[in-house]
Amino acid sequence: MLYERALERLKSKGLNLDINSFLRTFNRISSIGWVESYGSTRLALTNEHIMARRELLKELENIGAKVLFDEAGNIIAEVGSGSRAIAIGSHLDSVPGGGRFDGVFGIIAGLEILRAIVKSSLRLKHKLMLVDFNNEEGSRWNPPLLGSALSVGVYTRDFVYSRLDSNGVTFGEALERSGFKGSAENNLSMNPPRFYIEPHIEQGPELYREGYDIGIPQGIVGLRVLELTFKGRQDHASSHISLRRDPVVGLSKAVLRLREYALKNQDKLRITVGYISVDPGKFNVVPALSKITVDIRSYDSQVIDEATKYTIKVAENIGGEENLSVDYKELWTIPRIVFDPEVTSIIEESCRDLGFKCKRMWSWAGHDAQNMSRITKTAMIFVPSVEGISHSKDEYTREEDLVKGLILLAEVVLRLDEI
Amino acid sequence: MLYERALERLKSKGLNLDINSFLRTFNRISSIGWVESYGSTRLALTNEHIMARRELLKELENIGAKVLFDEAGNIIAEVGSGSRAIAIGSHLDSVPGGGRFDGVFGIIAGLEILRAIVKSSLRLKHKLMLVDFNNEEGSRWNPPLLGSALSVGVYTRDFVYSRLDSNGVTFGEALERSGFKGSAENNLSMNPPRFYIEPHIEQGPELYREGYDIGIPQGIVGLRVLELTFKGRQDHASSHISLRRDPVVGLSKAVLRLREYALKNQDKLRITVGYISVDPGKFNVVPALSKITVDIRSYDSQVIDEATKYTIKVAENIGGEENLSVDYKELWTIPRIVFDPEVTSIIEESCRDLGFKCKRMWSWAGHDAQNMSRITKTAMIFVPSVEGISHSKDEYTREEDLVKGLILLAEVVLRLDEI
Repeated sequence: MLYERALERLKSKGLNLDINSFLRTFNRISSIGWVESYGSTRLALTNEHIMARRELLKELENIGAKVLFDEAGNIIAEVGSGSRAIAIGSHLDSVPGGGRFDGVFGIIAGLEILRAIVKSSLRLKHKLMLVDFNNEEGSRWNPPLLGSALSVGVYTRDFVYSRLDSNGVTFGEALERSGFKGSAENNLSMNPPRFYIEPHIEQGPELYREGYDIGIPQGIVGLRVLELTFKGRQDHASSHISLRRDPVVGLSKAVLRLREYALKNQDKLRITVGYISVDPGKFNVVPALSKITVDIRSYDSQVIDEATKYTIKVAENIGGEENLSVDYKELWTIPRIVFDPEVTSIIEESCRDLGFKCKRMWSWAGHDAQNMSRITKTAMIFVPSVEGISHSKDEYTREEDLVKGLILLAEVVLRLDEI
Repeated sequence: MLYERALERLKSKGLNLDINSFLRTFNRISSIGWVESYGSTRLALTNEHIMARRELLKELENIGAKVLFDEAGNIIAEVGSGSRAIAIGSHLDSVPGGGRFDGVFGIIAGLEILRAIVKSSLRLKHKLMLVDFNNEEGSRWNPPLLGSALSVGVYTRDFVYSRLDSNGVTFGEALERSGFKGSAENNLSMNPPRFYIEPHIEQGPELYREGYDIGIPQGIVGLRVLELTFKGRQDHASSHISLRRDPVVGLSKAVLRLREYALKNQDKLRITVGYISVDPGKFNVVPALSKITVDIRSYDSQVIDEATKYTIKVAENIGGEENLSVDYKELWTIPRIVFDPEVTSIIEESCRDLGFKCKRMWSWAGHDAQNMSRITKTAMIFVPSVEGISHSKDEYTREEDLVKGLILLAEVVLRLDEI
């Protein structure tokens, strides 16, 4: 196998990665909250998420890591004794019915690097840090990336703690009960690591389809989420079709026009309608209103602005055609992030030396790396995902690719330590 | 006013309708559960519905009516002493955000007839009965018309009692707690009235637009409710548009094709998509599946069968176009009902004699009359609804039209008594 030579090379430098233990730990922790027919569900600070984090804490205890919690309930583990840290991070929470790889891969790869360093005779100049970020997905509390955002100071504590889940539970209440609430002194902004690397599966089919071993994101695309509301007139299912003001027709037209626009522009754009609600939502009532979210992504902020204008124009046109009133609001915008060019170059050189075929690309998904890039030199490492399927039970990365990602991470950590 | 002569005519027969008291009582009881910006919400056996029913019980007590509850929690009130009854019925429950007229008009009109008969010196051959049916709308427990269906024996007690609302509460539990649970001996099937008349607002714009005072339904159209499920592949909002299998696109195409079909056939057909759900319904996740209900109505069962076939064909075509798997199931079918020709003729003659301009038509909405028609001679009386808006806060019937409906009801009761 391609990676056996690379493993030998690391061994000769004094670092002994235990591939079997890495895969076993990955399989064990990624199976928490897994249901065969539905996928993984570990919403932030629910039982499943807490169980997965407790398993992580046991592993960290086994290797003698120092463990802290910060104000956002992020788990921050350290080994080694340098004054500044090389941090590896990701998350253990998932979307409802998500995959086994998103998030968990980065955490377990980081854990294995910490373990290997502790067991080795190497004396690194830097401490090694592993960060398990809280509420990365935003599936329980919106917006996503709450844990990293509070820890680096993007959002205030009051804002983050007051977020409500769909049952009316605040992030602050759930955090208090979970046992992961720590002190503001431990926030990453108080003592930033020198480097931050986030290993992750790709969330598109590029690497897999084009036959690359590794992807190196130049940065993360910008994201804007709009909410469109079509207000019609609630009416009985017996009412004349031509007299209706039906907001279900409005949302349906919007979905199809936005899909067409996104297809035409898919080299530079993604558009997703992931949330729909109709009110009152009864089989025998023409609804009074419908709401959809429109998630717009691009690496080019001008493309996002154009798509936003297009979305609003589409909604207004439909309002005119169907006699609906239309509201739209911007739920949030997260600007494009560009990663540290020095660190991305080191990742690229490491790939070349290890014989891994790599590609520079964009991350179309948000990651905690975008918050970390505000306080430290940040980059990501992507491994291929079969057909690019993600946030799905069908998400799949071959073991071989997970292992290549782990080896690259080790190589990069050793190189960063020398800077 | 047109109706003043008719009132005088009734007075000369010994029946003194109190229009002011009728309108006051209507306004008072129909305002329970009303919110200006949203409409009326009195879901069956919720506090608002129970409050409205208690007000009705007070009114019935004031006129000395004998009041029974049956096994379904229907309120059955009687005045007079004949061996068989002329029944008037409707319901006080509403959809969420419904109007003030649907259901309440029939109950309060019936109440005023009972009151007027009690206060008069008339000795009718028949008892007069008022029935307030439970869970007519089906907004809390599906299917609708549960109260009348149990009372006439269309559904078994076990079926009706085990219906679940969206919070997992059974009809049986809620009925027990409400205080309206009565005995099976009181079910209408045990001692059917001789006639049943249900006064109601029209739920389409026919009478209003064409300038009629009264509508006389020949019967109630048939209804079939289908559930369509589109299963795609849950995916990340970052995934390539052209690789998605997006069930939101599936439902949107279905809505628009069904709307087009319904528009083309609206002289004989209504189709409504009132319920939509997507799972998991997160802004940044392409959903795994979407579900819609398709409510199909026609007075011609062949038209319903054709529309059902068309709906399934549309869904399957979309499945092929979008690489979605498609499931459909029939949630229920309620066949067309034709009302008693003798009673509808009496209503028509009464209109002619009163000088009310009337039209034979179909009811496009279901009513408890369809269950009652199984055990007794049944008909309905429709009053105009402005623009035909119903199940909506904008539902509106002019006072003048409510009063005409009340007067006609009195005239019809007096005529039926003579048969």
